[in-house]
Amino acid sequence: MSPTLPPVRTRLTDLADQAGVSTATVSRVLNGKHGVSAQARQSVLAALDVLGYERPEKLRTRSAGLVGLVVPELVNPVFPAFAQVIESMLTERGYTPLLCTQSPGGTTEDQYVEMLLEHGVAGIVFVSGLHADSAASKDRYHRLRARGMPIVMVNGHADGVDAPSVSTDDAAALDLAFRHLVSLGHRNIGLAIGPDRFVPAARKRAEFTANLQRHLGVDDPTGHVVSTLFTVEGGQAAALELIASGHTAIVCGSDLMALGAIRGARAQGLSVPGDVSVVGFDDSPLIAFTDPPLTTVRQPVLAMGHAAVSALVSEINGTPASRTELKFHPELIVRGSTGAAPALADHTPLAAAL
Amino acid sequence: MSPTLPPVRTRLTDLADQAGVSTATVSRVLNGKHGVSAQARQSVLAALDVLGYERPEKLRTRSAGLVGLVVPELVNPVFPAFAQVIESMLTERGYTPLLCTQSPGGTTEDQYVEMLLEHGVAGIVFVSGLHADSAASKDRYHRLRARGMPIVMVNGHADGVDAPSVSTDDAAALDLAFRHLVSLGHRNIGLAIGPDRFVPAARKRAEFTANLQRHLGVDDPTGHVVSTLFTVEGGQAAALELIASGHTAIVCGSDLMALGAIRGARAQGLSVPGDVSVVGFDDSPLIAFTDPPLTTVRQPVLAMGHAAVSALVSEINGTPASRTELKFHPELIVRGSTGAAPALADHTPLAAAL
Repeated sequence: MSPTLPPVRTRLTDLADQAGVSTATVSRVLNGKHGVSAQARQSVLAALDVLGYERPEKLRTRSAGLVGLVVPELVNPVFPAFAQVIESMLTERGYTPLLCTQSPGGTTEDQYVEMLLEHGVAGIVFVSGLHADSAASKDRYHRLRARGMPIVMVNGHADGVDAPSVSTDDAAALDLAFRHLVSLGHRNIGLAIGPDRFVPAARKRAEFTANLQRHLGVDDPTGHVVSTLFTVEGGQAAALELIASGHTAIVCGSDLMALGAIRGARAQGLSVPGDVSVVGFDDSPLIAFTDPPLTTVRQPVLAMGHAAVSALVSEINGTPASRTELKFHPELIVRGSTGAAPALADHTPLAAAL
Repeated sequence: MSPTLPPVRTRLTDLADQAGVSTATVSRVLNGKHGVSAQARQSVLAALDVLGYERPEKLRTRSAGLVGLVVPELVNPVFPAFAQVIESMLTERGYTPLLCTQSPGGTTEDQYVEMLLEHGVAGIVFVSGLHADSAASKDRYHRLRARGMPIVMVNGHADGVDAPSVSTDDAAALDLAFRHLVSLGHRNIGLAIGPDRFVPAARKRAEFTANLQRHLGVDDPTGHVVSTLFTVEGGQAAALELIASGHTAIVCGSDLMALGAIRGARAQGLSVPGDVSVVGFDDSPLIAFTDPPLTTVRQPVLAMGHAAVSALVSEINGTPASRTELKFHPELIVRGSTGAAPALADHTPLAAAL
């Protein structure tokens, strides 16, 4: 609570507590002495940053090089989460991350890539980039590979591109959400999803269709899937359509869509989860604080970031990483937006159709 | 809902609807024809991006140069919000933004600046950087200015640095929050804030102290202000201390702290706002979806981003911008986390002390 910098002894103790090492170790690290493990050194640096102390000049190290990190935008909180994790891991490996984020009408992925090449990056990580858009040409990635640029793709596998690829297992995600809703007694389950041209959307739709058939005996998914945009407004619009056609549970393609679906249900005077259950996708930071706390499928951001960075660094060092798409298993995080299906009698419109 | 790209006519109509222009205008822009206003062109480009269509190659323009944008981290959602707004505005002015974000133990502000200089940036925007840390040396900024690098500081004014400076008016923010709580009958009001070495924290504490004196006749703020960290955990810890000493309302230094304060109050079996009222600061994206929806003081992110970019571009073009700190007036957004003070009888511990 003091407005001035605490005395040196307090700082050493604070740093040691925060880093989980001895004050002697803190002191060795701060003075640039040897005989400290890389991990302990990293913990002390992190403690300095967390507690807001300036790092001594002598601790600065030379960057191993620049790595570009291209993400679509920062509005969906899962993208800052991926960016933060990947940047952190790049830095641990000695690289300086250059984060390239897009906004409508702003700098495009191609413009960013051109700039990254001009500035001599050692490699590029693409998170949900044009590689994930089945309507976009893959030539841009073939060109990058032809000039030997190491790249890694996260979420949205592009067949035929010679690069490591790391994804959340969308089929598993849909399966988890669907089984959860069926176990709660829901029989009228809809999918609110973004445009089909995006690989993760198409994969979720395919698995949703398979689940409809498998669990509910519905052969034709028409009317049970509404494609809009991966935004709050997109989720709201899709939910209104699905609710109007008698659905009591909505699986959403993103947490933002799920927040929109909840808003849409409430706008109709319905309660979540009393009348309508909603499942999100991402488990973005802070999503546990929503009203109701969102039941959602968690992308394993940390593990995926780790795999992406490991693969890229390996490629940069001349050791090719596997070209088999690595699919990371998501987890269903059950919170408060899903509940038992309302009595079927209350929702006759579609009951007959199933 | 179709998995294939819609026919060209549909795309033109969709784009025209989204951009709010005629299909003829869309067509002219897509074909790189003249006779379209810059604004209409920008709207069509944004519509392409929003609807997820790839931009035609011929629409690509040459960047006016790189601009560095240094933000502390991406965990607090207000930083991605600032980054998105500032990047968008830089791109509109023709610049390519390079986003530099930090994480504990990762690349530091100084390392990023060194890299930005090596890569010939035209200017740098610092959001809540070391300029905001009264314990950090300002020499780094003096050196940048000495070599003629245009810089702009956002939130956390550093006296004596020769650069435009744009901030949320922290005094006004605290005043808004305090008056709101007093009007609801609260007399035991506490402040949960981050470390005092940060200019925005020190400013909020000073205004809080002045408000305590002015509205409640309390001369000594000791016990009414708890400094922790600007995080959920920091807010929770501060709230526990403030609640234990009988406070019925807590003003927080960030929305994250406010979410932590609500969690802390609930962990004590108290209801928000029934027993304890909580006010946040930032009005981060999605914060309206929390339980309860957070009453908070909104930083005018859009207006501040606009002012910062205008000042930087003006400096880059050789026209010095004003050195007077521009303080932007925040707004109090009243939602569900604040309510009438509980009857004084229920909260005797501190009542006597006031």
